[in-house]
Amino acid sequence: MNDFTYHNPVRVHFGKNAMDKLPGELARVGKKVLLVYGGGSIHRTGLYDRIMTMLRDAGKEVFEVSGVMPNPRTEKVYEGIELCKANGVEFILAVGGGSVVDCSKAIALGSCTDKDFWKTFFVDWEPAERAIPLGVVLTMPATGSEMDKSAVITNWATGEKNSYDSELEFAQFSILDPTVTYTLPPAQMANGIVDTMSHIFELYFSPPDGENVTDYLAEGLMRAVISAARTAVKEPTNYEARAALMWSSSFALCGMLNNGKKTDWCSHCIEHPLSAVYDVAHGAGLAVIHPAYMEYTRHLAPGRYARFAREVWHVDPAGKTEEEVCKEGIRCVREFFRELGAPATLTELGIPEPDFDRLVDLTDLGSYGYQPLTREDVYAILRMAR
Amino acid sequence: MNDFTYHNPVRVHFGKNAMDKLPGELARVGKKVLLVYGGGSIHRTGLYDRIMTMLRDAGKEVFEVSGVMPNPRTEKVYEGIELCKANGVEFILAVGGGSVVDCSKAIALGSCTDKDFWKTFFVDWEPAERAIPLGVVLTMPATGSEMDKSAVITNWATGEKNSYDSELEFAQFSILDPTVTYTLPPAQMANGIVDTMSHIFELYFSPPDGENVTDYLAEGLMRAVISAARTAVKEPTNYEARAALMWSSSFALCGMLNNGKKTDWCSHCIEHPLSAVYDVAHGAGLAVIHPAYMEYTRHLAPGRYARFAREVWHVDPAGKTEEEVCKEGIRCVREFFRELGAPATLTELGIPEPDFDRLVDLTDLGSYGYQPLTREDVYAILRMAR
Repeated sequence: MNDFTYHNPVRVHFGKNAMDKLPGELARVGKKVLLVYGGGSIHRTGLYDRIMTMLRDAGKEVFEVSGVMPNPRTEKVYEGIELCKANGVEFILAVGGGSVVDCSKAIALGSCTDKDFWKTFFVDWEPAERAIPLGVVLTMPATGSEMDKSAVITNWATGEKNSYDSELEFAQFSILDPTVTYTLPPAQMANGIVDTMSHIFELYFSPPDGENVTDYLAEGLMRAVISAARTAVKEPTNYEARAALMWSSSFALCGMLNNGKKTDWCSHCIEHPLSAVYDVAHGAGLAVIHPAYMEYTRHLAPGRYARFAREVWHVDPAGKTEEEVCKEGIRCVREFFRELGAPATLTELGIPEPDFDRLVDLTDLGSYGYQPLTREDVYAILRMAR
Repeated sequence: MNDFTYHNPVRVHFGKNAMDKLPGELARVGKKVLLVYGGGSIHRTGLYDRIMTMLRDAGKEVFEVSGVMPNPRTEKVYEGIELCKANGVEFILAVGGGSVVDCSKAIALGSCTDKDFWKTFFVDWEPAERAIPLGVVLTMPATGSEMDKSAVITNWATGEKNSYDSELEFAQFSILDPTVTYTLPPAQMANGIVDTMSHIFELYFSPPDGENVTDYLAEGLMRAVISAARTAVKEPTNYEARAALMWSSSFALCGMLNNGKKTDWCSHCIEHPLSAVYDVAHGAGLAVIHPAYMEYTRHLAPGRYARFAREVWHVDPAGKTEEEVCKEGIRCVREFFRELGAPATLTELGIPEPDFDRLVDLTDLGSYGYQPLTREDVYAILRMAR
């Protein structure tokens, strides 16, 4: 294991009755609360009314930023910052999926500085000194944002989709009730599962490859996700399966699976421009990109890919070369994504003629697992994914 | 999964260079520091001098409680409380294994009340309102105390070995450097590994038995421990193996493996009186008790014990009844403990004629996994372990 520091102070309330914990949490936060959410679903499900009642009962003065879109954009963040500054907002409550949570994190940071949030944090990566505290009621699992210190924001004008990490972005609390995920359309559930698996791949497929507790935990988690996903696809209201999917996606990015590992993130760096330029769902983009990346890079770590095939997919190595075992494991990934109904190619994703040059220009080549990517590598991977 | 709340704010610095983080942490704590440690080993290894230099460089006024014994006793806690109250100690630095950390936690709590710490917390379980903050430099992995909110203290006069949990007992930081564990005698390393496995058993072998991410993580962790232990027994200075053992024992009790599970703790409740009355090492006692408990209770959860055998020990179920698979898994546990050199019976532990009545009287029957234990059950398990 490489040396590491692990710290994650988020308080998680999980389960059918997790929402009962919200009043107790709200009692501990300031009076002026910004409620951030997405489209109309939380109105339709009654969640909006339920939360507004709790906020009113807690004596809060509530401001709202609604309409946060998937791949949240700078415009929405500026809207929230303006509201926060004008009204002295003391706490931000994000009710939604990763997009709402990330948008809230950016608002939390941007409201505590006179500088432009996008340039200061998401471009220049200056260290943040203050942020409005935030809490989360999660309605869609996938990104892990409810339990991590990262946010990803899209600058639609420039086509950049950038991330920013700071301990100030940790939620004070996150409420995770699997039953609120039942109404997710199948495609969104599928995207979330792909995103979760992809997150684990980004951490697992990286050096060092020796004895590492983290790798065993990652393999356990992948098995858990595969098993739960297969049940959830057939029975979307199977509580245990939906609970397993929700908790897996939080645990995947809580920091535990980073411990001792270099971590990769190339597939995400290739996918981000895809989402930023073509506005495709993040998970759908990853379903296309990540297996291509695996096929392209497996020769750098055959022992790792072979172990993955055996331990996660139970590929029987008898009578096979190591390379065959590696390829079988990746084939299992593709098949699994197909079981979920995710797209397998850029064409299926609705991008038959990608602007390769623009996508490559926008790809951050700064982080990698076993070996840095070149621009040529990215072209090649995008072509493989076509 | 059952509903759960998860919260663990401990900041962990792990690795060969983890000690380099201590000055930065010390810069953030108060001037008056109580250093708590055990016997002479930290002097012999130079760790004492290294830490005292850091404390002096940080401008701290240092008080000391030394000689904390395994199965830390109330007398040592009172000694620390007296020092803290007389001198206005602001921070407690525990340097040692679980015994030193637990003793420090009890001192931290007891120093902030006028009431008797043993009765108030460890007997009556009153909620603690304040505690002196503490930090840990861990020299011996096993108990997980460096990353949990629990302490276990022995009252030698009464033979009670009781625990007390409070979020106030979370360390602010824990420094985990695997290289400081190299000098541990083999028996202590073995005891630590047994304790870690036993901790995981206490969480894993409990309802619910359906789809649960936590179970998959526990299985991964057990595989990691078994693999690392087998290397460490042959090569005690193999860094990766010792690092894996150290991190496994922290992760096992950080709270993650409790999520969604009822948890058991019967084996620990049976072992505690053994340690309290006969002063045996906790891990050695568990090596004798836990397999007996597993054999005695496996009929309550055959599916779980069979899964354990297959997933953790790779027992091939072909041609075997479910019961045979269960028994095989437990046999693998006994064999593994024997590989480590741990005792297998009370006689080997040095207790050929246990005072069964006294041990049963002192066993807390309050918590259980699948079914509550009766006094008769405890007698039976102790006899099986003889």
